[in-house]
Amino acid sequence: MNYIVNISSKLIIGLFVFMLPALATDKPLADYPHYTLASSDAYDFSQISAYAGKHGRIYAYIDENLDDHFKNIQRWVRQRSISAQNVGITEMAELLRDDLAAIGFSETTLVPSAGHPGVWGYYDAGATKTLLVYMMYDVQPVNEDDWESPPFEGKLVERDFGQVLMARGATNQKGPQRAFLNAIESIIKVNGTLPVNLMVLAEGEEELGSPNYPQLVDAYEARLKTADGVLFPFNSQNLKGELTVLLGVKGINYWELESKGGSWGGPGKSEIHGSYKSVVDSPTQRLIAAIASMTTADGNTILIDGYYDDVRPPTVEESMLINAMSNKWSAADWKKQLSLSQFIHDQKGEAVLMRYLYDVTLNVDGIWSGYTGEGVKTILPHIATAKMDSRLPMGIDPDTQFARLRKHLDEHGFSDIIIRKLSGYPAAQTSVDAPLVQAAMGVFSKWANITSVMPRIGGSAPFYQFTERLGLPLVFNGLGHGSGAHGPNEYMLIYPHKDSKVAGLADIEKSYVDLLFALAEPAN
Amino acid sequence: MNYIVNISSKLIIGLFVFMLPALATDKPLADYPHYTLASSDAYDFSQISAYAGKHGRIYAYIDENLDDHFKNIQRWVRQRSISAQNVGITEMAELLRDDLAAIGFSETTLVPSAGHPGVWGYYDAGATKTLLVYMMYDVQPVNEDDWESPPFEGKLVERDFGQVLMARGATNQKGPQRAFLNAIESIIKVNGTLPVNLMVLAEGEEELGSPNYPQLVDAYEARLKTADGVLFPFNSQNLKGELTVLLGVKGINYWELESKGGSWGGPGKSEIHGSYKSVVDSPTQRLIAAIASMTTADGNTILIDGYYDDVRPPTVEESMLINAMSNKWSAADWKKQLSLSQFIHDQKGEAVLMRYLYDVTLNVDGIWSGYTGEGVKTILPHIATAKMDSRLPMGIDPDTQFARLRKHLDEHGFSDIIIRKLSGYPAAQTSVDAPLVQAAMGVFSKWANITSVMPRIGGSAPFYQFTERLGLPLVFNGLGHGSGAHGPNEYMLIYPHKDSKVAGLADIEKSYVDLLFALAEPAN
Repeated sequence: MNYIVNISSKLIIGLFVFMLPALATDKPLADYPHYTLASSDAYDFSQISAYAGKHGRIYAYIDENLDDHFKNIQRWVRQRSISAQNVGITEMAELLRDDLAAIGFSETTLVPSAGHPGVWGYYDAGATKTLLVYMMYDVQPVNEDDWESPPFEGKLVERDFGQVLMARGATNQKGPQRAFLNAIESIIKVNGTLPVNLMVLAEGEEELGSPNYPQLVDAYEARLKTADGVLFPFNSQNLKGELTVLLGVKGINYWELESKGGSWGGPGKSEIHGSYKSVVDSPTQRLIAAIASMTTADGNTILIDGYYDDVRPPTVEESMLINAMSNKWSAADWKKQLSLSQFIHDQKGEAVLMRYLYDVTLNVDGIWSGYTGEGVKTILPHIATAKMDSRLPMGIDPDTQFARLRKHLDEHGFSDIIIRKLSGYPAAQTSVDAPLVQAAMGVFSKWANITSVMPRIGGSAPFYQFTERLGLPLVFNGLGHGSGAHGPNEYMLIYPHKDSKVAGLADIEKSYVDLLFALAEPAN
Repeated sequence: MNYIVNISSKLIIGLFVFMLPALATDKPLADYPHYTLASSDAYDFSQISAYAGKHGRIYAYIDENLDDHFKNIQRWVRQRSISAQNVGITEMAELLRDDLAAIGFSETTLVPSAGHPGVWGYYDAGATKTLLVYMMYDVQPVNEDDWESPPFEGKLVERDFGQVLMARGATNQKGPQRAFLNAIESIIKVNGTLPVNLMVLAEGEEELGSPNYPQLVDAYEARLKTADGVLFPFNSQNLKGELTVLLGVKGINYWELESKGGSWGGPGKSEIHGSYKSVVDSPTQRLIAAIASMTTADGNTILIDGYYDDVRPPTVEESMLINAMSNKWSAADWKKQLSLSQFIHDQKGEAVLMRYLYDVTLNVDGIWSGYTGEGVKTILPHIATAKMDSRLPMGIDPDTQFARLRKHLDEHGFSDIIIRKLSGYPAAQTSVDAPLVQAAMGVFSKWANITSVMPRIGGSAPFYQFTERLGLPLVFNGLGHGSGAHGPNEYMLIYPHKDSKVAGLADIEKSYVDLLFALAEPAN
């Protein structure tokens, strides 16, 4: 599971088309928390001018060597590295380490962890500024039969918008990452060194939910804190070339609830004949009752005591960003994009955006119990399980929410129901005023159409390691386009057609060149 | 799906061991319907004397021809007849028809229906009494790999209680049915004719829920009504040789509930990213809320308006049967048998039995939605489905209950939730005083230990076709032992060890001989 890719493949694609008109009003909803903007001013993006620096010799080097650069990406995607199946993990970690060494990183090493090893690299440019680059070298499993072109052959495939590299990992995340390394290799080849120092701290378990990334950070924490910001190379453009800058993510708690026959009642060992329901309690109905008790009957207002209490209200910066979005974002478009007839409570306009950005959620990702096949089978199941998640905006502590959930179940007579915690981490957010963000927005403005800047998205990623723990600004957007992460026919656009507004491999690399120079010498 | 076999394999086996002491008292439960006995008298089973008739020449014929009789059963189980997969259906229907003809039935024919054909047979003995024999010639699918002996080879397998025929259909239901035909063949061979006329109306879709049996009844309704009772040949003994006589079944409604994104809200086409829960309704939580609304939070008291209204209160006969059971039945034993820590509301003793016999139930047989695999995946599913059943004691009309359920959902704001009806039929019950039942109990008393006589069980079978529609008494118990219906290693005990108290094939056939004569010439 990769939160980031969920964001890219479903959310961001959803966001790119919101360029429509004004916001409708919404009726107030008594039982629903409300969030009020702290400012009526809008952030003035006109102050950000497109990055003006020109690095013609490096650009030319990129153009001349583009075939080799593409082959570098091919070499990466051809090396399987499926973390869930432990296929090719060590080989890929070593490939990344050796590539860093070949480019000129003075420190390169595998970093042991409780799971797959991390990879550390340090490039000492003797510069004032240091950029930390987060990378993931693992990929999702594949169903080879579903692919148009074999997922580990890394072939170019013709699309009506250009030639794409089709491979597992093409866009998630080997393509953009190796494109970034191509860019810095080009700078070094032309200039002899980089404008900033680089730290790379890569993991091989992103697709497993990054369970051991905190350990990797442990090993280098003091040095990591000296960096000026973090970059996660990412293909963020849609097919129109548009790009939404995202400054943060919500945190998440993810757990399984399990209800099972036991001392409270219910079948103790296995399913029994359904006719016994007259005299035997149902663990399935118990799970259903427990979940139902957590919200109003519509499933939308959470009734767990204190669950909304700690949401950080909109800050002035967030309010200004939201006000700046207002004429670029349309709830109606979003509704269409998600195939909805209506949003919750038929809310419209800015109310939808506010809830999306600030709401604590409670969601049932899955539920299963008993007989789920064709036709009729009458059983009283002895066990029922649900997967649930809760999105946590800034201000919410994951453990506190787990404790509130446990207390709620206990107080409602469900103390036998097990909460199996699968994930839990807080939100992360970077200020739009951070020099790295300002530099990135300048570069993006040069190469693409920035549609809007969102203070955060509703999705989650464990970026708190960077923003909260290390105190660093994080940019997780970039030029380029890809799709199909986690599914078949994953691709990254390499050679766009002439009339395309999307960056191909060459422009992606040039934008990373610009970003490093922009960070080294901020505009003012 | 076969209700009957569920009864035999799970319920009846559960019932056979209840021979323990007195009933504990229970505390009254305000929100729970109560059922009060209409009489404090107990049915006097001492009036039923073991059948005294002796049919030595026929018994001897059975003993002499037992090998051939066993081979008849083998021939049947070796003919596959898997209704769900349409394997061997016509062949088995023709085999049954031809066997009836060979035995001497004057009318034998396949009966077309909307599904697999039925088989009709009439044996005219010129007798006063007529017995209708219900048969099913189909069997459940198999997973051959799970079997100790191939399911369609019908081999004898050694068990510590004797030699069993191991085969799909051995006990459910080919074994006991062909044993019955062996018995009547023996009578005819020895006496030239039968003491009663016989009608056979067999179906090939019992394992599919008997969807077209009513059509088969249509074709012969007037003639069927002239019968004196219905027999369903059945291996009802446990390994101790005990037999519980069952006089009825509950009816059942079985349906799927489906909640899906639509005009009310929720994702309209497919799952969406879980982070949208802040602004998008959840069909899964909606289904959960709908099911939760149907009962109290413990899942045990149904809140659907009028749902308990039509239960027929205990009759005098039922009360007398229950009173007669009281010192032969133990809730504690049942608790152990079902691996329960407690019954609903920790009820004990007769309260448990009363609820088991008289309660309308609401049960979730299965529920599924969204992601149910390993680990973390965050989605907001667009569809959620549950399978539910409701057991219907005497007095309850299935369609009325469906209408009440629909009304409940509509009134609670769930009019979008679909009820997909999969099955629905009423209860069925035969009076203990029916001549066929009295005759059967006399025969059972001769060959086995009758532990108790239950007015009904909590399980369901579409026996209303016989009892309610045709107005005939039904016996669905018999001598003999088998197990594994629907699972691997299904068997019927053929040659019990010397010290066994269970009837083997020879005694089963002799008991059927007795039953026909007992029906022809009732004791008084």
